[in-house]
Amino acid sequence: MSRVWNFSAGPAALPLPVLERAQRELLDWNGSGASVMEQSHRGKRFMAMAAQVEADLRELLDIPDDYAVLFEQGGATQHFAQIPMNLAGEGDSADYIVTGHWSEKAASEAAPYVRVNVAATSKADGYLRMPARATWNLASAASYVHMATNETIHGVQFQDVPEVGDVPLVADMSSDILSGPIDVRRFGLIYAGAQKNIGPSGLVLIIIRRDLLQRPGRPMARIFRYAEHAASDSMLNTPNTWGWYLAGLTFQWLKEGGGLAAMAERNREKASLLYSAIDGSGGFYRNPIDPAVRSRMNVPFTLHDSALDASFLQESEAAGLLALKGHKALGGMRASLYNAVPLQAVQALVGFMRDFARRHG
Amino acid sequence: MSRVWNFSAGPAALPLPVLERAQRELLDWNGSGASVMEQSHRGKRFMAMAAQVEADLRELLDIPDDYAVLFEQGGATQHFAQIPMNLAGEGDSADYIVTGHWSEKAASEAAPYVRVNVAATSKADGYLRMPARATWNLASAASYVHMATNETIHGVQFQDVPEVGDVPLVADMSSDILSGPIDVRRFGLIYAGAQKNIGPSGLVLIIIRRDLLQRPGRPMARIFRYAEHAASDSMLNTPNTWGWYLAGLTFQWLKEGGGLAAMAERNREKASLLYSAIDGSGGFYRNPIDPAVRSRMNVPFTLHDSALDASFLQESEAAGLLALKGHKALGGMRASLYNAVPLQAVQALVGFMRDFARRHG
Repeated sequence: MSRVWNFSAGPAALPLPVLERAQRELLDWNGSGASVMEQSHRGKRFMAMAAQVEADLRELLDIPDDYAVLFEQGGATQHFAQIPMNLAGEGDSADYIVTGHWSEKAASEAAPYVRVNVAATSKADGYLRMPARATWNLASAASYVHMATNETIHGVQFQDVPEVGDVPLVADMSSDILSGPIDVRRFGLIYAGAQKNIGPSGLVLIIIRRDLLQRPGRPMARIFRYAEHAASDSMLNTPNTWGWYLAGLTFQWLKEGGGLAAMAERNREKASLLYSAIDGSGGFYRNPIDPAVRSRMNVPFTLHDSALDASFLQESEAAGLLALKGHKALGGMRASLYNAVPLQAVQALVGFMRDFARRHG
Repeated sequence: MSRVWNFSAGPAALPLPVLERAQRELLDWNGSGASVMEQSHRGKRFMAMAAQVEADLRELLDIPDDYAVLFEQGGATQHFAQIPMNLAGEGDSADYIVTGHWSEKAASEAAPYVRVNVAATSKADGYLRMPARATWNLASAASYVHMATNETIHGVQFQDVPEVGDVPLVADMSSDILSGPIDVRRFGLIYAGAQKNIGPSGLVLIIIRRDLLQRPGRPMARIFRYAEHAASDSMLNTPNTWGWYLAGLTFQWLKEGGGLAAMAERNREKASLLYSAIDGSGGFYRNPIDPAVRSRMNVPFTLHDSALDASFLQESEAAGLLALKGHKALGGMRASLYNAVPLQAVQALVGFMRDFARRHG
């Protein structure tokens, strides 16, 4: 067995100690004589674990009591639709800040359920920068304002939380949740697919201010209603128990590693190392994003000569550096530096990049 | 480590060889140097695996080419709603056969999307028998007929596929899929939550006749539309990759064990052993279901004196027999005998039950 350095954009690298523990207890979890996957979600053992996982998350993110925490399914994409189903009534409108592929998709999946107002977008700039807050065209009557804090494909990230007044701010944090401290109170709803910084795919975390659970939404099946999930502690139906368990192991790993402030420091160091290598390559590598809003999680970059792309990918994989191919929408390369990617992985990548540039420059 | 015999109704026991293999390759799957959970679902390795899993399932169930196979999320409960969203238009009606808790819930979750006609129900009989086919009040204009082939709480199971004419038959097979051969051609849509006979929770299998994908349904987000999932090979968004992988290991285990005919034979033997022990207990144990429709998957039973329930549960758990407590709706006991529960487990249970009756009779 030789583990590689994994730069996948998602499903992404998981912390090695989390995987090792899951492996150890795969056949016999918590003294039960059965796998965690073989437990009733309503059994005492699983219920106790689920409560602890929520408590650990509340501690990590300092989530106030007036916010509910839900462990859902369907990926962030399903919640692109479920959010307007729950937060908007017939004829209502919502403001969308479109800063890349994912916030654009969020607006398009919402359109059957709410009048989407694109209040700001950097699309005309190729999503290379953020639209200045002063230019946003927010409506005071909007049901909510939607943003994505980080864009995995385009590699841009909000550096602070925009002020939007009394309208609830809804944030897709799929790709940067838990990468550093956030002030949950600034948001009405935070949601995140698990497969970057939380755990395996198939789990979605939702943090919602409880007063928003009172919104009537529209007629729909109970299974789509967040208030029903909150009232049943995310056990309205059988949850993704394995995902919930691995999320819990990840939260423990974060706590043992010093929490989110320590994680933010590590992430800054990792991103800085890679951007410095790109910017200092004399044009061999290039990242076109406005430096003020570059993502610390996803670093897209191109080679000065795209004819070298195939060699770069082949040689990097041979060197134990996995999944560096860029998204097909942009081409080139992309290195994702989520929490579970250690500094050594970025050091190895930067070393490889310098060597590759020397040999092919 | 000592594994117990696990009679959980779901999430349920998984085949031991499947768990052992998953454990072995948890850190390094398929020579990739990373876990299967850390792979991009669009990477070559995962795509090849996903195609093989579908091929194995098609072979096991003899699924014709004019049926699509989808690997979805949300649990069967979400699809209680998504099925009418996809198969019925505004104002359409559908026929529901209600034979227990789950088919009743399917009808109730469908109600916001389709006019539900309960065409037959055994509710007045306490769900102890099946409503005779001759009494069903089917409508030729119905969008579909919905049934649950097996009811996990009430312990009744259809013994054959009812004839419903040209209206597509939609079947929730969550709790008995892969327990024996079925004729897929008799159904318009088959769906099943994974957590009984397929794999871990958080995955839903859908087998749908392709012509039904053409139905317009109603305006909704793409993520809810089965045709979109079929067109993207269930990768419209990030799927539950771990569930998909474990489903594949389970399908391989079924093939190696002789396929579904061999599985059906084992399941008949297991159920027969337990029902014989109950019926032959001189009234100490009791199962009230019409013997002609007793479930081979879920066997609810009561003790002649419910004051003994607590002792029965305590002593059985001490004897390594897990999760025998009945559903709170019925009380008493329940033993679930899914594919992964071996004959030895049922032999151990029956031995314990005889001994318990002798000591407390």
